[in-house]
Amino acid sequence: MRIVGELINASRKKIRDDIKEKNRDVIAKVAKEQHEHGADFIDVNAGIFVGKETDYMNWLVETVQETLDTPCCIDSPDPKVVEEALKIHKGTPMINSISLESERYNAILPILKGTDAKIIALCMSDEGMPYTKEDRLKIADKLINSLVQNNVKPGNIYVDPLVHPIGSGNHLGNEFLKTIEAITEQYEGVHTICGLSNISYGIPKRQFANQVFMSMAITKGLDSAILNPMDQRMMANIVAAETLIGKDDYCMNYVEAYRNGLFDFNK
Amino acid sequence: MRIVGELINASRKKIRDDIKEKNRDVIAKVAKEQHEHGADFIDVNAGIFVGKETDYMNWLVETVQETLDTPCCIDSPDPKVVEEALKIHKGTPMINSISLESERYNAILPILKGTDAKIIALCMSDEGMPYTKEDRLKIADKLINSLVQNNVKPGNIYVDPLVHPIGSGNHLGNEFLKTIEAITEQYEGVHTICGLSNISYGIPKRQFANQVFMSMAITKGLDSAILNPMDQRMMANIVAAETLIGKDDYCMNYVEAYRNGLFDFNK
Repeated sequence: MRIVGELINASRKKIRDDIKEKNRDVIAKVAKEQHEHGADFIDVNAGIFVGKETDYMNWLVETVQETLDTPCCIDSPDPKVVEEALKIHKGTPMINSISLESERYNAILPILKGTDAKIIALCMSDEGMPYTKEDRLKIADKLINSLVQNNVKPGNIYVDPLVHPIGSGNHLGNEFLKTIEAITEQYEGVHTICGLSNISYGIPKRQFANQVFMSMAITKGLDSAILNPMDQRMMANIVAAETLIGKDDYCMNYVEAYRNGLFDFNK
Repeated sequence: MRIVGELINASRKKIRDDIKEKNRDVIAKVAKEQHEHGADFIDVNAGIFVGKETDYMNWLVETVQETLDTPCCIDSPDPKVVEEALKIHKGTPMINSISLESERYNAILPILKGTDAKIIALCMSDEGMPYTKEDRLKIADKLINSLVQNNVKPGNIYVDPLVHPIGSGNHLGNEFLKTIEAITEQYEGVHTICGLSNISYGIPKRQFANQVFMSMAITKGLDSAILNPMDQRMMANIVAAETLIGKDDYCMNYVEAYRNGLFDFNK
């Protein structure tokens, strides 16, 4: 599974202050820790600093890249910010995100041209956020086809169907899971991704519910996720679920994770 | 999910001694604890006592039924033992098991006649144990059809596809999961069941792997299981997975389980 480490996000109080004060050591440490715990991309988000987002975003990209070879996931709702960050990012980043909302779509698409960047494609359109598998697939289909027509490789597309809280409707988890399954089956090479913690919004014991839902999503084909790689049980769930679904020859990853202490918790 | 509590099984050293000495209090306590932790059926197995199995089995059934209203799951490879136990069991038991092995099939089928017993149907035939979804479905199809033709209600049939260790082949988990999905989709009203701990045979951290695999099996439709209901994390996984797959209106079971302390563990 491809892991995008989510911790360097200005919506988190502690990180916001560190970004504001440009505490290079802290950001470098959080990037490094996430890498060491399995992050393949380091998400960087400075979206809360209106008017100064480009400055902070570029500083974040520079700081992470001074520390690590791990690429960034450039996470901004503002295409201008993404464009500037892309100019200074070395290697191939991920971009979070494009969608079928015409404003965002038209602004992000030209930025992708000529790059090999990986792009998160949100199942969202000008008509709002879809709730059923069918409505999500309509958007995903348009997004995938138009991206491919614009020379984005299928393997660079990461579809995010968007998770809604199970507390808002008991079918919402299953609709999400069915979407993951359908995209995995219907679009060869295209990836699926999500930040799934929204599933447990409003119910108790959220971290546990998120871990269980991760195992379920992997069962349906989810192959990438935006999450906190320092959540040991979450990472253990991922390793175990991928082994059990058949993505781990001779259980080698499982046994290696065991030797490295990933399963060092009670029961 | 329907839970068959697996603890009263003579293959477990401690229980074997208690059965041999007919320690009524111990058996009653283990039955009661399993019921209190969510068992819908209490499995009783005295298969290790060759020649005396009927005596011990009948004593087990009597002891459990003196203690609880919860029905037994009469678990024996010997149709004679099942037949005798059925004569004294009050209410509607589950029987573990029939299969397509001709000897077992021909001996168990007449015992079912005229009862409303629930029957575990193992995907096993005279040709041995199947490993692929296709081979399992062939057996399941024959078993389901012939049971229904012999007046067994679909809702009384619990198909057990049999779990093979993931360490024996990385496709084996997925073949099992695909079988659960196919039976759930193709045979309305028919249940699926398993004792899934075999999946982790030969790999470390078995209990954890079993819990993750349970979430995955529920994602594919598994609605019954033979397990240790005292395994708190396993039961918590079941409650969470059933909520997340949409089988828990308004998350009521989840919230109730939380209030009752089922989620009282770290993280």
